[in-house]
Amino acid sequence: MGQKLYLTRREKFSAAHRMYVPEWTDEQNLEVFGKCSNPNWHGHDYVLYVTVRGDLSGETGLVINMNVLKEIIREKIIDKVDHRNLNLEVDFMKGMNATTENLAVAIWNELEEALKSAGCELYCVKIEETENNTVEYYGKKDH
Amino acid sequence: MGQKLYLTRREKFSAAHRMYVPEWTDEQNLEVFGKCSNPNWHGHDYVLYVTVRGDLSGETGLVINMNVLKEIIREKIIDKVDHRNLNLEVDFMKGMNATTENLAVAIWNELEEALKSAGCELYCVKIEETENNTVEYYGKKDH
Amino acid sequence: MGQKLYLTRREKFSAAHRMYVPEWTDEQNLEVFGKCSNPNWHGHDYVLYVTVRGDLSGETGLVINMNVLKEIIREKIIDKVDHRNLNLEVDFMKGMNATTENLAVAIWNELEEALKSAGCELYCVKIEETENNTVEYYGKKDH
Amino acid sequence: MGQKLYLTRREKFSAAHRMYVPEWTDEQNLEVFGKCSNPNWHGHDYVLYVTVRGDLSGETGLVINMNVLKEIIREKIIDKVDHRNLNLEVDFMKGMNATTENLAVAIWNELEEALKSAGCELYCVKIEETENNTVEYYGKKDH
Amino acid sequence: MGQKLYLTRREKFSAAHRMYVPEWTDEQNLEVFGKCSNPNWHGHDYVLYVTVRGDLSGETGLVINMNVLKEIIREKIIDKVDHRNLNLEVDFMKGMNATTENLAVAIWNELEEALKSAGCELYCVKIEETENNTVEYYGKKDH
Amino acid sequence: MGQKLYLTRREKFSAAHRMYVPEWTDEQNLEVFGKCSNPNWHGHDYVLYVTVRGDLSGETGLVINMNVLKEIIREKIIDKVDHRNLNLEVDFMKGMNATTENLAVAIWNELEEALKSAGCELYCVKIEETENNTVEYYGKKDH
Repeated sequence: MGQKLYLTRREKFSAAHRMYVPEWTDEQNLEVFGKCSNPNWHGHDYVLYVTVRGDLSGETGLVINMNVLKEIIREKIIDKVDHRNLNLEVDFMKGMNATTENLAVAIWNELEEALKSAGCELYCVKIEETENNTVEYYGKKDH
Repeated sequence: MGQKLYLTRREKFSAAHRMYVPEWTDEQNLEVFGKCSNPNWHGHDYVLYVTVRGDLSGETGLVINMNVLKEIIREKIIDKVDHRNLNLEVDFMKGMNATTENLAVAIWNELEEALKSAGCELYCVKIEETENNTVEYYGKKDH
Repeated sequence: MGQKLYLTRREKFSAAHRMYVPEWTDEQNLEVFGKCSNPNWHGHDYVLYVTVRGDLSGETGLVINMNVLKEIIREKIIDKVDHRNLNLEVDFMKGMNATTENLAVAIWNELEEALKSAGCELYCVKIEETENNTVEYYGKKDH
Repeated sequence: MGQKLYLTRREKFSAAHRMYVPEWTDEQNLEVFGKCSNPNWHGHDYVLYVTVRGDLSGETGLVINMNVLKEIIREKIIDKVDHRNLNLEVDFMKGMNATTENLAVAIWNELEEALKSAGCELYCVKIEETENNTVEYYGKKDH
Repeated sequence: MGQKLYLTRREKFSAAHRMYVPEWTDEQNLEVFGKCSNPNWHGHDYVLYVTVRGDLSGETGLVINMNVLKEIIREKIIDKVDHRNLNLEVDFMKGMNATTENLAVAIWNELEEALKSAGCELYCVKIEETENNTVEYYGKKDH
Repeated sequence: MGQKLYLTRREKFSAAHRMYVPEWTDEQNLEVFGKCSNPNWHGHDYVLYVTVRGDLSGETGLVINMNVLKEIIREKIIDKVDHRNLNLEVDFMKGMNATTENLAVAIWNELEEALKSAGCELYCVKIEETENNTVEYYGKKDH
């Protein structure tokens, strides 16, 4: 087996969101999501960590050029979510509750193919909503 | 002169906002404030640092009980801005552009009297909008 | 297989402790644990990260309500260790050397059932004793 | 006037302490200091920032050799407080309540002369008790 | 007097440097600067904080547009030092020992006029060489 | 199965490097590595995290004495890379492009046997080149 390495790129974005289930009454949403369901929105400085796995190239000493990784993340994700409203303006979040969990899965789905085309494998999407609350998603594989 | 000490309490809050001047056209707002003027809002995990100055008590070894300081900040500020929309829902921001600069001055004005009543002097309000952008306000005094 | 997500909640606590094996002489304890065996105690601002694993709910977009997770950790752990002496005052550390390793295993044991009852699976207990020293425990399962 | 520069050295130490006024009853101490007065101690990873002010040397481009500054702080302070009990074991805290305020003033008094002998002027002692609570002391001068 | 606010912009750059005085022998340089005088260079991820002071505009709620501040710092400083050798490649460090102190003064001198032209006043240049060592410069004024 | 715990030690080092493949022309190196191939070097404050895995000792409550772990890392790695040029001065990087990926693998190879002799198993080498770019290596095992 070759030498697998894991590269993680950190990117940040600032967005507005609210958490609510449209089928529920306001009371139900408030009970489950509390102040996070505020209809006037609130927001976060989200921190996104994208980890890819790949083989070490003996020639370059790289797995993937970190600039390529950065550009894919910025084009596919950051440009669409930064200074945006996650509920109203992000195509890949349409019809979903704007939880960090749903966001992690949706970002995985946006990135998976593009990273494969760039020659490496998406391994983990991690999002820090605040410094106290973090979500990780490793795809459908066992972890 | 006695021994002046400076105490700083850090509190965090998550809020939505947008930056815009209502008298301007959308084009003007976009030109000056860029993506920060997005009409669908965006948000931040703001970090607020409140610094007070006071004399050291020889008896207790305190300037002000940090729990008192915390409670004043939470009651006067955090409860009103956390998980809120700074433009729409915060009484002390009414009629102002929701810039971090205006927010720092407004928070100063909310806290100054309450802290004086608690026996110490407000010295500085510092807000980190993101880890790259910070605003400090020291009141109208010379600094 | 469903979509497993990992949620991590960070909580902090400040505690006193010392490291020593009661059956050993003071010299042995000093030799193995150095200044950490100081009989007059020392202390840390411990940072606790609790990670749970669970299925994504299609309805709510949640794995577990982060507030529920926070409350379980506070009730079962933080209320018992914060501003406490880990050697003298914490029931679940009785009879154990107050190392971060033992603390991680003990916290796992305190949380495992309560989290299962709340509908998710404890995956990892991580403790930063200082920013340089960290311990992780994943239970008896293979990792 | 020459070019004054400010150098800050960060050092960390882990210590136990409790807050209480010996002349008070247990009830009074508990009322004022809350869980911080726990007789079995608690502790923190304190972060100490020592700022000195001095003239820039045209020859070396230094104000003071940072290693000299580090050694003075370690010898005068860190070696005496790290992994110690601030109430029981630190000579320069004898007879004082172990508050962060008192600690900041006491550290100032320990360092002032030694730094003057090393050719620079102590400007500020800052202590982070936790990431939320910080105390600064600038000596008896106006700031 | 108007309301003065202080804005701080953080920028990072990665650079190589060594500390040495060309007029000295290698032995003297080694004695004063230790491993920092390594002739094969070493490097840091420097963190630069530029603070400006200005009046709050009642119309915009800004002191200076943070993007303007960012662009001035990037053009005048970051583009010249990032991924560079501070001793060999930076015009404004020519003939100076590449200490953080000299760097802070030199960056001040590069920025002062440009910021004045942009309508605000440079107040402080702060550089973190490492998380333990920081230098601040406030110009020739009293602070 | 016994109780496996994971201990992580953080150490920092400051080093110069450049990225380039000697067999390539300057143009090729510039195209692939950009400003990171600057022939005059640049540098970073690297953060190294070494994770070991081992059984919990019922007697001591330790997996490995953290001081032993620290000493092995300092002797084998930090003393050789801190304030050094990774391309020119580090024996275990000879003949390799000084990428963070190659560095992670090389550090693994330097530590693996020494840690086994000390009674625990190397589990992960993680290096933060900057706060945005991180590499992890888990050896040739599946992860």
